[in-house]
Amino acid sequence: MPLKGLFLDHLATRMAYAEKALSATGFDALVISSGQPFTYFADDQDAPFNTVPHFRHYCPLTGPHHVLVLKPGAKPMLVRYAPEDFWYEQLPLGSPFWAEGFDLVEAPSLDAVWEKVGQPKRAAYIGNETDRAAAAGLELNPASITAFLDWGRSYKTPYEIHCIEEATVTAALGHAAGRKAFLAGASELEIHYAFMEAVGCLEFELAFASIVAQNEKGATLHYENKRSFRGGNTLLLDCGARHLGYASDITRTTPAPSCDPRFKALVDGMEKNMLEICAAVRPHMPFGELHHFSHLKLAGLLKEHGLLDADPEEAVALGLTRPFYPHGLGHHLGIQVHDVAGKLAGPDGSIAPPPAGHPTLRTTRTTEPGHVITIEPGLYFIPMLLRPFRENEHKARFDWKLIDELSPNGGIRIEDDMLVTETGGRNLTRKHLPN
Amino acid sequence: MPLKGLFLDHLATRMAYAEKALSATGFDALVISSGQPFTYFADDQDAPFNTVPHFRHYCPLTGPHHVLVLKPGAKPMLVRYAPEDFWYEQLPLGSPFWAEGFDLVEAPSLDAVWEKVGQPKRAAYIGNETDRAAAAGLELNPASITAFLDWGRSYKTPYEIHCIEEATVTAALGHAAGRKAFLAGASELEIHYAFMEAVGCLEFELAFASIVAQNEKGATLHYENKRSFRGGNTLLLDCGARHLGYASDITRTTPAPSCDPRFKALVDGMEKNMLEICAAVRPHMPFGELHHFSHLKLAGLLKEHGLLDADPEEAVALGLTRPFYPHGLGHHLGIQVHDVAGKLAGPDGSIAPPPAGHPTLRTTRTTEPGHVITIEPGLYFIPMLLRPFRENEHKARFDWKLIDELSPNGGIRIEDDMLVTETGGRNLTRKHLPN
Repeated sequence: MPLKGLFLDHLATRMAYAEKALSATGFDALVISSGQPFTYFADDQDAPFNTVPHFRHYCPLTGPHHVLVLKPGAKPMLVRYAPEDFWYEQLPLGSPFWAEGFDLVEAPSLDAVWEKVGQPKRAAYIGNETDRAAAAGLELNPASITAFLDWGRSYKTPYEIHCIEEATVTAALGHAAGRKAFLAGASELEIHYAFMEAVGCLEFELAFASIVAQNEKGATLHYENKRSFRGGNTLLLDCGARHLGYASDITRTTPAPSCDPRFKALVDGMEKNMLEICAAVRPHMPFGELHHFSHLKLAGLLKEHGLLDADPEEAVALGLTRPFYPHGLGHHLGIQVHDVAGKLAGPDGSIAPPPAGHPTLRTTRTTEPGHVITIEPGLYFIPMLLRPFRENEHKARFDWKLIDELSPNGGIRIEDDMLVTETGGRNLTRKHLPN
Repeated sequence: MPLKGLFLDHLATRMAYAEKALSATGFDALVISSGQPFTYFADDQDAPFNTVPHFRHYCPLTGPHHVLVLKPGAKPMLVRYAPEDFWYEQLPLGSPFWAEGFDLVEAPSLDAVWEKVGQPKRAAYIGNETDRAAAAGLELNPASITAFLDWGRSYKTPYEIHCIEEATVTAALGHAAGRKAFLAGASELEIHYAFMEAVGCLEFELAFASIVAQNEKGATLHYENKRSFRGGNTLLLDCGARHLGYASDITRTTPAPSCDPRFKALVDGMEKNMLEICAAVRPHMPFGELHHFSHLKLAGLLKEHGLLDADPEEAVALGLTRPFYPHGLGHHLGIQVHDVAGKLAGPDGSIAPPPAGHPTLRTTRTTEPGHVITIEPGLYFIPMLLRPFRENEHKARFDWKLIDELSPNGGIRIEDDMLVTETGGRNLTRKHLPN
């Protein structure tokens, strides 16, 4: 289906859901801002602008101060902030594919925007322009409707799945370019530039700050530095792009020809595990179960390669895999790279409890068709986490010499983006980035 | 002098000034945070971190949550936030050139940081960690001491001048690379990448979002888009770098060989004007006078090239240059690209009034030795600003045909960074970027 049709269907679905949300929470209208910029403390410079995620859920228009007014039974009204200005660029709207979905009005000033919004009765407001919204008599960011809308955001429409997949297509170009640069001997900063140029956007337009880690830096989960260091044995590249406001999130770990073959064998093993975990994705499955499965697979790999002397069930039960793999298997993905509602048990904001053995899991939701999640098992050599095990009652289970010899390689993470379907899962990443 | 000596002298100057500030405003101690990150609304992603400028004035240490405690007669205490963490990189401090200036303590947590800070009596706090500071009994961001410190920031020490000049050296590399890419036919985005790679940093590490404008986009003063458009006739490149937290801010306008020779002649004329304005910089001069001089020079150029039929004095008196040049001649430069205190008349926070003919000037200060200012005259074809003159009583003074023919070239801005000396000015940019 052409993009316009996909979008109009998406918007119709969203409007129907918003009506349910309003009715469930006792409001008659929903007002959503694209948001106002954040100015740094004691400075006159703004942070890169990030459109309020709730706004993006209905409309791909970028930029600050636009406002949506949603009322049951009415076409959504989009008040577009469009000042005449020679300081900052103001582009004419043109005829974007989504325009037909809205009753569109333009406003040349903030006052004019909020004059158009008016003072809708019993209206909930979502956004950070709270002074304006309060003056309009709106109820500010009510938790009830936010939770209800967050819950709805986890069921992706075909339009949203299209956008996320397009974001993986773009990010895959960047990953291929980054890997090529690495294998040609580039520095972390140069690999980052190679990624940026292949994606063709600005840094703040990425889904998140890119992680470009050579060698031991792969063991820092959110490593954001970009060293001029060249000639690493391993590259862990965790970068995502955006398409119409939707994020992708992809990780690949690449050993250089110079890499220790024992570490390279672990990368191959993790790749095999990864594909098995992806194949296990199905609907109506507590995410914690999948996470537990990924620990069992890791335990098997650690045993096979002589790092850990314990059978998988026992190793996981004793928590022996955790220092090697301290993060969750994945998270919801959508408008936000860590998309909302990963811990919810229902639209009322109730929380899904974590599984017994994994109390700090970020995602505790039960999978359902339409969810998009990342699958990103890891295996790292993190000195801070391994340290206690060098002394405690399990120390004899670990091959410390092997661990120390492999530690300079940092870690392994492999991450794809998966759609949960009626019957299983569809990998949105693999066909665009096969390995 | 080696950097360490420069820095220790700088810190001694700063401490002496801070003592004066405390004594003048009735405080016994000054507590300054490096700041806390800003998390985007309804998201879990942070904006790029920007160290609180006041903190940077004393210490080049980067990152959030560090705290300085300054007390008269005592070595400044630096509480360095240094958690053990496998999520985000925590580098060991090592032995930076500036360490000797501080009584340095490390704290592994936020609680530990503020335990070290303690509850100093009659202490002023500057920063955005206001909950912590309030709990420590500090007075939050008092306007009196902030104004006093802002005033002091406009007198640059040799260390600061060194840093700003180094930032111009780096930015000059970027400008040369950007111009070369443009002349080879690159797009705005590609020119941006060429600039980034030559500077060798990340986007948020620049002094500000780069302005890469081809053709008519040069007439949007803060044009931040990066089009894939190639083959422009003109490039306006306004980009700065940073060195140890200090900014540079440089603009060049480059006509391509394909450029209309009449526009190219205007670029040459603006370059000549620019050098004359720089030569006119001297201490004890209201900045408004220099701004007025730049309007007179522009009026002469407009007359010479047949755009405006008026003698310079008359043209400026009638406001006929303003649609071509709607911004100020420059601004203070330092830790912030638009550095503080450009409008102050004294350390008490009193304001220097703008000159009669230029009521909206950003910089109204009188120059003094040690000030670093940008000099950035402009000449633009801005449809929105010219429009009223097409109809008003001055319309016959303009050659509208010529204006319309030149408008697709956008505009011209040339910007250098200047130190005000005892006897005149020293251009910190030109020798690194001759044209």
